[in-house]
Amino acid sequence: MSTVTTPDPHSELPGRIMAREMAEQPEVLRRILDEGAPAIRKVAQEIAARAPRFVLLTARGTSDNAALYAKYLLEVRLGLPCGLTSMSTTTAYGARPDLTDVLVVTVSQSGGSPDLVASTRAAREAGAVTLAVTNNPDSPLAAVSEYHIDIMAGPEKALPATKTYTASLLALYLFVEGLRGGDGGPAHVLPELAAGLLARQDEVRALAARYRFAERMVITSRGYGYPTAKEAALKLMETSYIPALAYSGADLLHGPLAMVDNVSPVIAVVTDGKGGEALQPVLDRLRGRGADLVVIGPRGQVERASAGFVLPTGNVAEEVQPVLEIIPLQLLAYEVTIARGQDPDAPRALAKVTETH
Amino acid sequence: MSTVTTPDPHSELPGRIMAREMAEQPEVLRRILDEGAPAIRKVAQEIAARAPRFVLLTARGTSDNAALYAKYLLEVRLGLPCGLTSMSTTTAYGARPDLTDVLVVTVSQSGGSPDLVASTRAAREAGAVTLAVTNNPDSPLAAVSEYHIDIMAGPEKALPATKTYTASLLALYLFVEGLRGGDGGPAHVLPELAAGLLARQDEVRALAARYRFAERMVITSRGYGYPTAKEAALKLMETSYIPALAYSGADLLHGPLAMVDNVSPVIAVVTDGKGGEALQPVLDRLRGRGADLVVIGPRGQVERASAGFVLPTGNVAEEVQPVLEIIPLQLLAYEVTIARGQDPDAPRALAKVTETH
Repeated sequence: MSTVTTPDPHSELPGRIMAREMAEQPEVLRRILDEGAPAIRKVAQEIAARAPRFVLLTARGTSDNAALYAKYLLEVRLGLPCGLTSMSTTTAYGARPDLTDVLVVTVSQSGGSPDLVASTRAAREAGAVTLAVTNNPDSPLAAVSEYHIDIMAGPEKALPATKTYTASLLALYLFVEGLRGGDGGPAHVLPELAAGLLARQDEVRALAARYRFAERMVITSRGYGYPTAKEAALKLMETSYIPALAYSGADLLHGPLAMVDNVSPVIAVVTDGKGGEALQPVLDRLRGRGADLVVIGPRGQVERASAGFVLPTGNVAEEVQPVLEIIPLQLLAYEVTIARGQDPDAPRALAKVTETH
Repeated sequence: MSTVTTPDPHSELPGRIMAREMAEQPEVLRRILDEGAPAIRKVAQEIAARAPRFVLLTARGTSDNAALYAKYLLEVRLGLPCGLTSMSTTTAYGARPDLTDVLVVTVSQSGGSPDLVASTRAAREAGAVTLAVTNNPDSPLAAVSEYHIDIMAGPEKALPATKTYTASLLALYLFVEGLRGGDGGPAHVLPELAAGLLARQDEVRALAARYRFAERMVITSRGYGYPTAKEAALKLMETSYIPALAYSGADLLHGPLAMVDNVSPVIAVVTDGKGGEALQPVLDRLRGRGADLVVIGPRGQVERASAGFVLPTGNVAEEVQPVLEIIPLQLLAYEVTIARGQDPDAPRALAKVTETH
């Protein structure tokens, strides 16, 4: 199957690069499962033999949301305590913690940002087992890390990352499954289901018509869906410039709920599983306040909302649902941006490889 | 010194409770230094003897920002790797990690939220050394934790937390200093300097007049100032409902910069030290884009910005500056909210003790 040749309704229009890269996602996911999985399993087995006791995840931007997904997997599936690195503690303040027994996972599409390279090198010198997850095996980050996983997404040219996000999620899922000796079987449904979601762009376009004039958006979730909420907010902001605020459902009740009223639509990413169950009291509270609630989730949840997009969750393990959940939200960012007369391929002021120090 | 009797310009107006509690901050800081420090040092010595190798910090809302400040201190000053807890991994997914050698610090003003109590209990059962930092020694969270630090802020009645935030910062600073055998000397300047900042409310009112009609705000910082940026965003949102987006300077360049244009003011929290130095390229980029840049920081930085508030940083160690930095931003949230005709004491929809499960 190749979706690269899918007719592209915007082929001569703004957003054609992002549209093409979103459409490649089923093919990329299949490539990782068919060609990438053995190498990922081998890395996982070697790292499992080192028996790390703590995991630090280091990333920025879209990759940081993929790292957060890995944090949930590592904590829930493996019981490994995890942290997300506050990079400036190393790069600005020169902290040199003892990282014996610590696995440091650095996620970066380009593998090129100097601060990630510096902090990974420092971690390795401090005794950590270092793993880079990138889209470029020849990158400086891959070179400086003891282990490397290639997400095999092919070149990504649009500024908003899409296929490298879902590719990172799948690669990280297979890695964590490898650490625990699993086979990653639940992931095999993803390529076909992803293609099914991409075929429903018309439904997303209708949602975009409803929200194109929104002055701001709140996006919420809990558990495995929370990284999806954060990535959706980033995608909306960097393409459409609509301020989109992501909160875990619990944090939303601790303050930002004051900001939700009947002019701020709330997008809820409802996983089918324990994360979605934990989100129920938040959804009830939002409905009680008369919020315009858009649900991305199972049919029963969408039917109780103001609007939404039904995800095929019936036979999909909760821990792999994030690979699918983000796709309608990528499409929404794209469609809202097109509807507002902007170009999702070229947001103002951004370079594809961001060099932060 | 008692600032409780300071004339309150809004004594019969909306916001009088928040105004009074902000004004109490110098007194609370002094109380912690004079009366609380010995108990904090004792807790720190006992925990240091247990030699924790990792630290997990657990909190929500304002307390989560205080926990993030502690993460920077622990990483930079002690070289201890840290993580912020994703609470749902325990409370929704039932993860039971092995927490031998792990210190779990739970920060909560009320000490009453059931999910914090449950996750702290689970951590203790999993072998962690548990420490609760609360404003209520009789709280369920204090009871379930092996160690407790009282932030001694007195009852907090306004919904937006102010004095309990700066009290948590100072208590956490003294705790981390105690872990490393320091005396916390750099904190002794804070009460008087805090009183000096509070006396400059007129300057903040002028800033508020400039930004009361902002449709959104971006707040950025790096290093020790980053928790201040997050807390300032939360304060602005929960009082004025203005969408305020906080990003570390590095993350801002990885996407959300597209959202910054000449209609979105950017507040930069510039610490005097390595964090502020690391933020310089971001400030240069923002100035280059013509952003309306508001600096909270040293005089030289404010003079190069569109507007700002000068912090007295000359004799203040970088690691304690966050206790001061937040004060003009609390005042800004208050003044903007008053200027918009709303009541900062009673944001819509919020309860003082948020019970999340």
